[in-house]
Amino acid sequence: MRTSLKIDGPCKTYLTEAELPKAWYNVRADMKKKPAPLLNPKTLKPVTFEDLRPVFCDELIKQELDENTAYFPIPEDILTFYKMYRPSPLVRAYFLEQALETPAHIYYKFEGNNTSGSHKLNSAIAQAYYAKQQGLKGVTTETGAGQWGTALSMACAFFDLECQVYMVKCSYEQKPFRREVMRTYGGKVTPSPSMTTEVGRKINAEFPGATGSLGCAISEAVEAAQAQEGFRYVLGSVLNQVLLHQTIIGLETQTALKKLGVKADIIIGCAGGGSNLGGLISPFVGEKLRGEADYRFIAVEPASCPSLTRGRYAYDFCDTGCICPMAKMYTLGSKFMPSASHAGGLRYHGMSTILSELYDQKVMEARSVEQTKVFEAAETFARTEGILPAPESSHAIRVAMDEALECKKTGEAKNIVFGLTGTGYFDMMSYARFNDGTMSDYIPTDEELAASFAKMPKV
Amino acid sequence: MRTSLKIDGPCKTYLTEAELPKAWYNVRADMKKKPAPLLNPKTLKPVTFEDLRPVFCDELIKQELDENTAYFPIPEDILTFYKMYRPSPLVRAYFLEQALETPAHIYYKFEGNNTSGSHKLNSAIAQAYYAKQQGLKGVTTETGAGQWGTALSMACAFFDLECQVYMVKCSYEQKPFRREVMRTYGGKVTPSPSMTTEVGRKINAEFPGATGSLGCAISEAVEAAQAQEGFRYVLGSVLNQVLLHQTIIGLETQTALKKLGVKADIIIGCAGGGSNLGGLISPFVGEKLRGEADYRFIAVEPASCPSLTRGRYAYDFCDTGCICPMAKMYTLGSKFMPSASHAGGLRYHGMSTILSELYDQKVMEARSVEQTKVFEAAETFARTEGILPAPESSHAIRVAMDEALECKKTGEAKNIVFGLTGTGYFDMMSYARFNDGTMSDYIPTDEELAASFAKMPKV
Repeated sequence: MRTSLKIDGPCKTYLTEAELPKAWYNVRADMKKKPAPLLNPKTLKPVTFEDLRPVFCDELIKQELDENTAYFPIPEDILTFYKMYRPSPLVRAYFLEQALETPAHIYYKFEGNNTSGSHKLNSAIAQAYYAKQQGLKGVTTETGAGQWGTALSMACAFFDLECQVYMVKCSYEQKPFRREVMRTYGGKVTPSPSMTTEVGRKINAEFPGATGSLGCAISEAVEAAQAQEGFRYVLGSVLNQVLLHQTIIGLETQTALKKLGVKADIIIGCAGGGSNLGGLISPFVGEKLRGEADYRFIAVEPASCPSLTRGRYAYDFCDTGCICPMAKMYTLGSKFMPSASHAGGLRYHGMSTILSELYDQKVMEARSVEQTKVFEAAETFARTEGILPAPESSHAIRVAMDEALECKKTGEAKNIVFGLTGTGYFDMMSYARFNDGTMSDYIPTDEELAASFAKMPKV
Repeated sequence: MRTSLKIDGPCKTYLTEAELPKAWYNVRADMKKKPAPLLNPKTLKPVTFEDLRPVFCDELIKQELDENTAYFPIPEDILTFYKMYRPSPLVRAYFLEQALETPAHIYYKFEGNNTSGSHKLNSAIAQAYYAKQQGLKGVTTETGAGQWGTALSMACAFFDLECQVYMVKCSYEQKPFRREVMRTYGGKVTPSPSMTTEVGRKINAEFPGATGSLGCAISEAVEAAQAQEGFRYVLGSVLNQVLLHQTIIGLETQTALKKLGVKADIIIGCAGGGSNLGGLISPFVGEKLRGEADYRFIAVEPASCPSLTRGRYAYDFCDTGCICPMAKMYTLGSKFMPSASHAGGLRYHGMSTILSELYDQKVMEARSVEQTKVFEAAETFARTEGILPAPESSHAIRVAMDEALECKKTGEAKNIVFGLTGTGYFDMMSYARFNDGTMSDYIPTDEELAASFAKMPKV
């Protein structure tokens, strides 16, 4: 019986709604060497505002291209919406610490207490707001695990915008209930690759029975946006604008840690396209770049889709269909088709250009982990901390636990902070496989990666 | 665009962990006319401590039978566990108010922000604690919608107890993912009526293809507990002990309203067995009974299972198998088989004896609502407040909205408080029916009820 547990402070630290950050933080302003610019795939020159106008909302393009403004004020209507579910709690994982018998102090920023089930709502509401401001009819997007599509459906319902979602096919099939949540919010969901777009038909022809990837779904959504009057495309990760909106996570964490008088030693997040990790670490990276404090940052990715740990740092297409701008990033090649791993949200071939550059500058580390080990961590976390985590988030849990177990060996009482991006309520089919012992790990071979690299553009 | 929304206070009021109530409140202590005692079905005399020992944990029997002690201190280990997910927020429904254009102020106490998805965890952890204290090996229980079974699995995982759950068959089939959550927490789940117990086999023989009911599942769980050494039965609703533990909801609400300087006019909750409603209103009922304040209380039940609004106030069996004590309560008859309504947690033929007595004394009102109207309210709530509610909780939302719309007619700015007991993430099949327009309403006929009443015991 767990009678010995000593809780010497609050489990959960909530800021007040009045303490909500009033501006997002743009880490590029503090980077001496900036991320390489996006390139127009036709001209191979840096993209301009005009290049991007047919695809993105005007205000969002400004945010995308601005590498000097450190703070962007959050519009009042977005702050109002944020109050629906923010500030999110910073939780001290007393129960997990006890189970691990570690001297480390573990904290997690929990973004799952909203119906989208993740941090995605932070950027969805911002992008829907700017689309409405611009007088658009609706937006198109892709979704992997379904969190982003749900978040965008919620945001569009709030602003009365039409929402068209291309959902990675394997997630669409694994998560029928996620679809229904989107439908309840009025979202229109299509499995990708579909036969409704040119690029979808092409991918289906080239890879019959393809289970889809974020790269494919992006191409389809971009095409659909351009084909309809009054529509623009919005993206849930990778882009600078998305990382910008997600800094609300890191800014709240920074304030909460200050309140607690705690200095983080290691900050950990899972990385698919980079939105959660970038949002969480940006304000701390800023401190590090300005020489105010030192931190270790660890990006955690699945061994099945190891963009940072086994990818190349080069210009590549952001989407499988090669219709989006090219980005210099750590990439497995835009033709890489990850296996139907259960962490749908991490099945992206590339990585945010900001995070890629920070990794290249060795400001941030990266680690890849295997799926079964991730679910072992998820189960331990669920049973001790009482929250059933999303498979994506569980990648961060795995490494946080590994670091805490390392502290057990060394006796160090490090402060470990990780991002718990979401809940796993719609991932029970994956949990079922884990419970049944039928979950498999997949790691791409060097040959597979080499074949994918060979198809990358020569820029 | 919703730019006009004025938020003149916090959306969410969180108490600090230090402000957590330190004792549960027993409303029977303030009732002049007490609820009628449980009867031993063999002797027809009030049950004694010894009568109940083979079925329930000792400490819980003391709580069950004590009608005079007003406050029971909450053991330290339970308070520690509560800090994992409590205090829960009291939310001002600014966005819903705006959508309804009502002068009313609507508040809801949100109990869904934990993995069990509902308030059930409040009593589960208490019951698991007392079972562990008594040195038991494990517990058996029933579950309707699955929230209680999940909560108990979580609590048993925490205290390393075995957990056997009999799940109402129609919910078991409608909610495969809910089962997996229980399994992830180590729970063993059996659909009820099953062939693993004598009473289950009997019910299956009498009603071939029975979709189950809470009454059946209770009988099976009680039988299973008695058949195994070191096991006891625990129940997620109806009993006095459960309402006692759930008063943490009402006590926190009371404190939060005081902090806000708000006096509630109407307090609303859904009622299946009565645990959430009883827990929410008890402290306010106490104020009313002591003449300190006046409130309207409204119990909301499904039209498909209208225990209070169309039942009889009489002694009846609490379970379909007639092996539990008899209770004087509003009941549709223990042989009543409700239709496979989607609000699995409200499919109980009877009602807490405390709430039954309060209803009979006209301290509390009751209202029944039809399923499609409930889902209409759920959809509006989801789209405005951003939380996808459980079908059970949505019964309370329906009546809160109706009362707010009444205020719109009269111009009164009443303070309406309701219990939002849980989230609907595992109820997407019901939402799908609603989205598809294939949801049906069912209301039992007078003849059906008369036939069920005829089978009730003559006490």
